Amino acid sequence: MERIKTGVAGLDNLIEGGFPKESITLVSGPPGGGKSIFCFQFLYEGIQNREKCLFMTLDKKVEGLLTQARELGFDFQPAIEQNLIKFIFLNINKKFVYETMTNEIMSGNYNRIVLDSITPLSEMPIYMRNTEDTGLDTSVATPEDYPAGVGIPTRRLHLRYILNALETSKSTSIVTSELPVGSVLLSRDGISEFLADGVITLSLDPTMDRRKLSIMKMRNTRHSLKPQEMRIDSGGIKLV
Amino acid sequence: MERIKTGVAGLDNLIEGGFPKESITLVSGPPGGGKSIFCFQFLYEGIQNREKCLFMTLDKKVEGLLTQARELGFDFQPAIEQNLIKFIFLNINKKFVYETMTNEIMSGNYNRIVLDSITPLSEMPIYMRNTEDTGLDTSVATPEDYPAGVGIPTRRLHLRYILNALETSKSTSIVTSELPVGSVLLSRDGISEFLADGVITLSLDPTMDRRKLSIMKMRNTRHSLKPQEMRIDSGGIKLV
Amino acid sequence: MERIKTGVAGLDNLIEGGFPKESITLVSGPPGGGKSIFCFQFLYEGIQNREKCLFMTLDKKVEGLLTQARELGFDFQPAIEQNLIKFIFLNINKKFVYETMTNEIMSGNYNRIVLDSITPLSEMPIYMRNTEDTGLDTSVATPEDYPAGVGIPTRRLHLRYILNALETSKSTSIVTSELPVGSVLLSRDGISEFLADGVITLSLDPTMDRRKLSIMKMRNTRHSLKPQEMRIDSGGIKLV
Amino acid sequence: MERIKTGVAGLDNLIEGGFPKESITLVSGPPGGGKSIFCFQFLYEGIQNREKCLFMTLDKKVEGLLTQARELGFDFQPAIEQNLIKFIFLNINKKFVYETMTNEIMSGNYNRIVLDSITPLSEMPIYMRNTEDTGLDTSVATPEDYPAGVGIPTRRLHLRYILNALETSKSTSIVTSELPVGSVLLSRDGISEFLADGVITLSLDPTMDRRKLSIMKMRNTRHSLKPQEMRIDSGGIKLV
Amino acid sequence: MERIKTGVAGLDNLIEGGFPKESITLVSGPPGGGKSIFCFQFLYEGIQNREKCLFMTLDKKVEGLLTQARELGFDFQPAIEQNLIKFIFLNINKKFVYETMTNEIMSGNYNRIVLDSITPLSEMPIYMRNTEDTGLDTSVATPEDYPAGVGIPTRRLHLRYILNALETSKSTSIVTSELPVGSVLLSRDGISEFLADGVITLSLDPTMDRRKLSIMKMRNTRHSLKPQEMRIDSGGIKLV
Amino acid sequence: MERIKTGVAGLDNLIEGGFPKESITLVSGPPGGGKSIFCFQFLYEGIQNREKCLFMTLDKKVEGLLTQARELGFDFQPAIEQNLIKFIFLNINKKFVYETMTNEIMSGNYNRIVLDSITPLSEMPIYMRNTEDTGLDTSVATPEDYPAGVGIPTRRLHLRYILNALETSKSTSIVTSELPVGSVLLSRDGISEFLADGVITLSLDPTMDRRKLSIMKMRNTRHSLKPQEMRIDSGGIKLV
Repeated sequence: MERIKTGVAGLDNLIEGGFPKESITLVSGPPGGGKSIFCFQFLYEGIQNREKCLFMTLDKKVEGLLTQARELGFDFQPAIEQNLIKFIFLNINKKFVYETMTNEIMSGNYNRIVLDSITPLSEMPIYMRNTEDTGLDTSVATPEDYPAGVGIPTRRLHLRYILNALETSKSTSIVTSELPVGSVLLSRDGISEFLADGVITLSLDPTMDRRKLSIMKMRNTRHSLKPQEMRIDSGGIKLV
Repeated sequence: MERIKTGVAGLDNLIEGGFPKESITLVSGPPGGGKSIFCFQFLYEGIQNREKCLFMTLDKKVEGLLTQARELGFDFQPAIEQNLIKFIFLNINKKFVYETMTNEIMSGNYNRIVLDSITPLSEMPIYMRNTEDTGLDTSVATPEDYPAGVGIPTRRLHLRYILNALETSKSTSIVTSELPVGSVLLSRDGISEFLADGVITLSLDPTMDRRKLSIMKMRNTRHSLKPQEMRIDSGGIKLV
Repeated sequence: MERIKTGVAGLDNLIEGGFPKESITLVSGPPGGGKSIFCFQFLYEGIQNREKCLFMTLDKKVEGLLTQARELGFDFQPAIEQNLIKFIFLNINKKFVYETMTNEIMSGNYNRIVLDSITPLSEMPIYMRNTEDTGLDTSVATPEDYPAGVGIPTRRLHLRYILNALETSKSTSIVTSELPVGSVLLSRDGISEFLADGVITLSLDPTMDRRKLSIMKMRNTRHSLKPQEMRIDSGGIKLV
Repeated sequence: MERIKTGVAGLDNLIEGGFPKESITLVSGPPGGGKSIFCFQFLYEGIQNREKCLFMTLDKKVEGLLTQARELGFDFQPAIEQNLIKFIFLNINKKFVYETMTNEIMSGNYNRIVLDSITPLSEMPIYMRNTEDTGLDTSVATPEDYPAGVGIPTRRLHLRYILNALETSKSTSIVTSELPVGSVLLSRDGISEFLADGVITLSLDPTMDRRKLSIMKMRNTRHSLKPQEMRIDSGGIKLV
Repeated sequence: MERIKTGVAGLDNLIEGGFPKESITLVSGPPGGGKSIFCFQFLYEGIQNREKCLFMTLDKKVEGLLTQARELGFDFQPAIEQNLIKFIFLNINKKFVYETMTNEIMSGNYNRIVLDSITPLSEMPIYMRNTEDTGLDTSVATPEDYPAGVGIPTRRLHLRYILNALETSKSTSIVTSELPVGSVLLSRDGISEFLADGVITLSLDPTMDRRKLSIMKMRNTRHSLKPQEMRIDSGGIKLV
Repeated sequence: MERIKTGVAGLDNLIEGGFPKESITLVSGPPGGGKSIFCFQFLYEGIQNREKCLFMTLDKKVEGLLTQARELGFDFQPAIEQNLIKFIFLNINKKFVYETMTNEIMSGNYNRIVLDSITPLSEMPIYMRNTEDTGLDTSVATPEDYPAGVGIPTRRLHLRYILNALETSKSTSIVTSELPVGSVLLSRDGISEFLADGVITLSLDPTMDRRKLSIMKMRNTRHSLKPQEMRIDSGGIKLV
C-alpha cells in the first residue's frame, strides 16, 4: 500500500509511513487546536514533491491564511505562482457552493486536497440540485425523490456527497471538523468519523498547557491509539 | 442448537461454539473499533466452508472494502468469481433502496449475511411502500394506515423491517451500528440492541492503547459479560 | 392478601410469598438483562398449577421464543396443546393492534398475563378509536374530544389504557420495558414505573460479570430495596 | 399561626407542629417512595379529628387504593360511610376533568384535600374553557385571548389553576408529583415546587436500603433542611 | 456612587454600602431559598426611610404574602395605609399584564421596586403590542416588524423590555428568578444574569443543613465572590 | 507582524506584545466575569495613542456604561468630545440594526472596535436583506436564494456576516460573548470561537474567590494555554 507523507514531524513513523494513498483523513479539534496548521504542513510537504495541491477554505479570506502560514515558516507564494497549489474560498452564502467545490475537486488532477472545514457545509439546509452536469460519478437524491413535506436528513447526505467527491478524485485528502470544547465526539456532526478512512484528533489541556494528537482510526494501517504529546512552533506541529 | 463459527479467533469458545444458527447479531463500535473487520472474518469463515455469503455496504465503494480486507489477509476475489460471495452497495440516496435490499436478501439463499451498517437506513425519513410485491412475509404499515399529518415513528419500524427480512431469510447475520464516542448505548439508535438476538460491542481505550470486545447479549447462549481484551493485526481481530 | 408465586427461585421469599394477586409488575432491564426469561418463569410457574396463561410478544416470532424457552428448560409445547397457555404476536404495524390486544386480554379469563414489551406500544403515534365495542370498562379520550391540531400526550394515555385493560381483566400480570444502557429511569418511558403496582429492575455489570435484581416498588408488600445478586442458567434466573 | 397535624410520626416536631393551616404542600418522590402512603396518613389524621377530607386520585381505581391503605392499617371504610371522607377518581381522558375537580374542591367545605398526583393534569395539552361557571374566583386565560397559532405555555397555567383552586377552597392540601429516578428537580415539572407553600421530598437509596424524607421548603416555618431517615411499616411512614 | 441599603444584615458591608442607586439586581434561588424574604427586607428597609416602594408578585395572593412577611417580623400594613408601599398582583393569564406592569412602574415615582418573579413573564408566548401609548421610552419590536411565520426570540425581548422599564423608572430594583435545583445557571432563563447590574444567588445544602448567599456580579462595586453563610430567622436573612 | 497593545496589564507579555493587527478576538465569560471591563481597557489604551475607537453595545444605555468605566478609572468623556471614541447603542428590536452596525463599522476608519456583545445579534431570527447598498464587500445569502419553507441556519450566517464586516474594516476588534455558568463552550453559540482569530476566556471560581484569564487561541502568536490568575480593581483587570 502506497503511503503519502503527512508533513508532520514524527507522525509518519506512527502510521506505517504516512496516510494511505487516496484516503480521506478527518482532522478534528477545538478552537486553537492546530487544525489549519496541520493542513498547511500536509500541503507544504506536497509541494516539496511537486505534487498538485488544493486548499479549500470556508471561514477566512485567503490572504489571512497565507499570512498565518508564512508566520509559521510555510511560504506558499512561490508555489502559487508555479500553479502547484491553489487556495479557493468556498462561500457558503452562495447557493452554488456545492457545484463550485465539486467542479474544482474533479477538474484539477490534484494529488492532495484540503477542505477546511467540512462543518458549515454539512449544516446547510438545502440539498444540491442538478448535479449530473458536474460529471461526477455520484448518485444523489433530489428533493423530487421524496414526498412533499418530508425533511431530508441532509447532514449525512451532505457529508457523503463531499467525501464521495474527494474519493472519486483519486487525491489524498484531509477534511477538518470543528470540535466544540467538551465534546467527546470525533467531529462536530458525529457522522464524519464513520465515513472517513482515518481520524486524527488534536486536543489541548489548558491546565497542563499541553497539546496532544491522537490517531483514532486509520484504515489499512496498524497504529497506536495512545495520545501523542505535540508542540506548535515555528515549523508547525511536531510530535515530541 | 446448531452453532455458526464466527471466524474471530477465540470468540467461539466464549459463546458455546459460535452464533446460534439463523440468529442476528448486532456488532457496535466507535470509529476505528473494527466493525468492518469483524464482518470480513465472519464471511471469510463462511466461504472456507463454501457457504453462500452476502456483504451489503452503505458507506464505501466495494473496491475500497476489498482492498482493506486483502490487506488484512482476507482475499475475497476468488470467492467472488466462484459466486460464493456477493458485495453490494446499498445507495441510501435511491428511493428504492429498501426494495433492493429486501430482494437481495430473499433471493439469494444466503447462509451468512452482513449489513454494514444499519445506521443510515434507520435514519431515512420515509417509509417503504408497495412492499407486498417483494414476496416477503412481513406486514408493514403504510402511510395510508395512519391519519394524515401523523408522523410515523419510522426508526423502530425501519429497524424491525430490516431485521424481519433477515430473520425470514433463514441466514445467520450480522448488522453493524455506529456508536459515537462517549455513547453508553449499545447502538446509535438505542433500539437495535433490543431487537437483535445478540449484541457484541467493540470498544477502545486510547489512553491505555487497548481494545476490548464485550458480549452484552446472546440468546440461547451462556456467556460471560466480561470485556475481553483483543488485538487487530494481520489476520484481523484476535482475542488475547 | 393472596400471593402469586413468581417462579423465580429465591424471589418469593423477598416479597411476602409472591406478587400480590391481580397486581401489575413492571420488569425493566437493558438488552440481555433477562426480561423475557423472567417472563418465561412466571408463566411456567402458572402452568404447573394449571392456571390459564397468556404471553403477548411484540418483537419476535413465536417459534423463536419457544425455542429460547426450551433451551432454558421451559418446554411450553404440552401446555399449548392443552390450551393452558397461548402465545400471540402483537403486530404494531397493524392499526388495530390495540383492539386485538384488548380483546385477547378480556376474553380469555387468564390468571397470568405477560406483555413483552410495552415500549413499542407506548410509542405509537396514534391513539385508539372506537374502543367502546371492546366491552372494556375504560373511558378513553378520542381525538374528537380535543380541538383540531392539538397533539395528544399519547404516551401516558397509551400506558394507562394498557394497564387499565390488564387491571380490569383481574389477572396477575407482568409488563416489560426496554431500559437503554446508562438510563437511570425505571422504564424507557419514565412513566410506567409510576402506574404499575410493582417495579423490578434487572441490571448487569459487565466489568464484574455480575447480574442484579432489584425490587424498587411493590404495593402492599414489605421488601428490601437492596440489589440482589442473580445468575442466569439452565432453569433461568436464580437469586444467589 | 395555626398548625395542621401531618399524621406522619415524628414530622410535626420538625415543622413547628404541622403544616400551616390552609397551606399547600408538594410531596415528591420516585416510584415506591411512599407518596400515596404519606397522603393516607395525612387524611387518616384528619378523620380522627372528624375533619372533612377529600382524596382525588388519577392513576388507580379507588378500591385498589382502599385495599392498599387498609393493609397499612388505615381503614377508611367507616369514615366513608359517615361522609367524613370522599375518594374520587379524576379521569384525565375526560375533557371536563378540570371542571369536575374544581367543582368538587369548591363544593365540599373540605378541611383536608389530597391530589395524587398533579403530574398528568399538568401535562394535558388543552387548556380549560368556560371556567366562569364554576364560581371559582380565578381569572384564567382562554385560547381566545391569544393570537391564532400561538402555543400557550399550558403547563405553568395548569399548575397555577389547580393550586389556585386549592388555595381558594381554604383547605389544607397535599399535591404529589412523580419524580423520575435520577432527577434533581423537586417535581416532575420543575415548576410546582415554586408555587407550593411547602415541599417535602421522599427518596430512597437502594444500595443502602434506606429511605429519607427532606423538608425542602415550608413557608412561615423554621425547619432543618437535613434529610431525615424514615421507615415504611404497618402504620405507614415513621421518622427514625 | 450613591448606595441603597439592602436591608439584609451583613450584606451592605460586602458591597460598598449597598446596591448602586438605580441599579437592577437579580436574586436567584431554588424553592425555599429565601428569595421573597430577601425582597421583604429590601422594601422594609425602604419604608423605614419613607421611600416609596412597589412589590409586584405573580405567584401568590397578596394576603398570603403579607402574612408570611408579618410572621418574619415585617408588618407592611401601616406602610400600606400610609401609601408608602403598594403590593400588586400581576396576573399572567391576562393579556394586558405587560401594560399593567409598565404603567405601574412608570406612574409611581417609586424609589424601590420588586418584581417577584420574572420567570413566568419571560416565558409568555406572545409579545406585547401597542406599547407606544404607555409613554415608556423604549423601542420595542412588534410582530409587524418581522416577516410572517418568523418566530420572534421572545424570551430575551421580554426580559429586555422589563429591565428597560425598571431602568427608565430610575428606581432601585430587585427581580427574582426561579432556579431549579441542580441548575448551574444564575437564572431560570440563562439570560437575565447578563442583563441585570447585579446578581445574588441564594443556595441551600440539605445534607449540611446550610444556606449560602453569593454575590456573583455587582457593577461598579468591588466584592468577594465567596459564598457567604446565612441564616433565615425571625428578622429574615442574616449573614453569619 | 504588527502588535496592538491590549491595555490589560500583564497580558501583552503573554502574546508577543499584543493582539495581531487587524485581528478579531473573542472575549467570553460568565456574568460578572469582566468582559465589559476588558473592552474599556482595550479602547482606553487606544485613545491614549489617539487611535479612533468605536464601542457598540446592545444591552445597556450608554450613560450607564460611561459611569461604570469612570468608576474604574477610565474617563471617556474627553475622548468623546475630541471625536476619538464613539459609543453607540445597537437596538436589536429595530429591524435595521444590521445595516446600522455595518454602516458604522465601515464609515468610521476606526482603529479599534468593540462589539459588546455578539450574542443577541446572532440569535435574531431574521436574516438581513438588501445589504449590497451598504458598500460592504460581503456576499450574503438572501431568503430568495433558498427554496420556500427552508429555515436558514441563521446563527452561523449572522456570525460570519458580523466578523466579515469587522475584518473588512481593517480595524483590530474585540467581540464579547455571554457564557452561561457551567458551559464548557468558549462562546454562547459554540461557533464564534472557530471564526475569531483569537479567543480569551474570563472565568471565576466563587469558592476560591479567584478570577482567571485564559488564552485559548491566538492566530500567529505563540502563547501558553495556562489559565492566568487575575484581579479586578480600580484600573480594571490586572494579571497577577
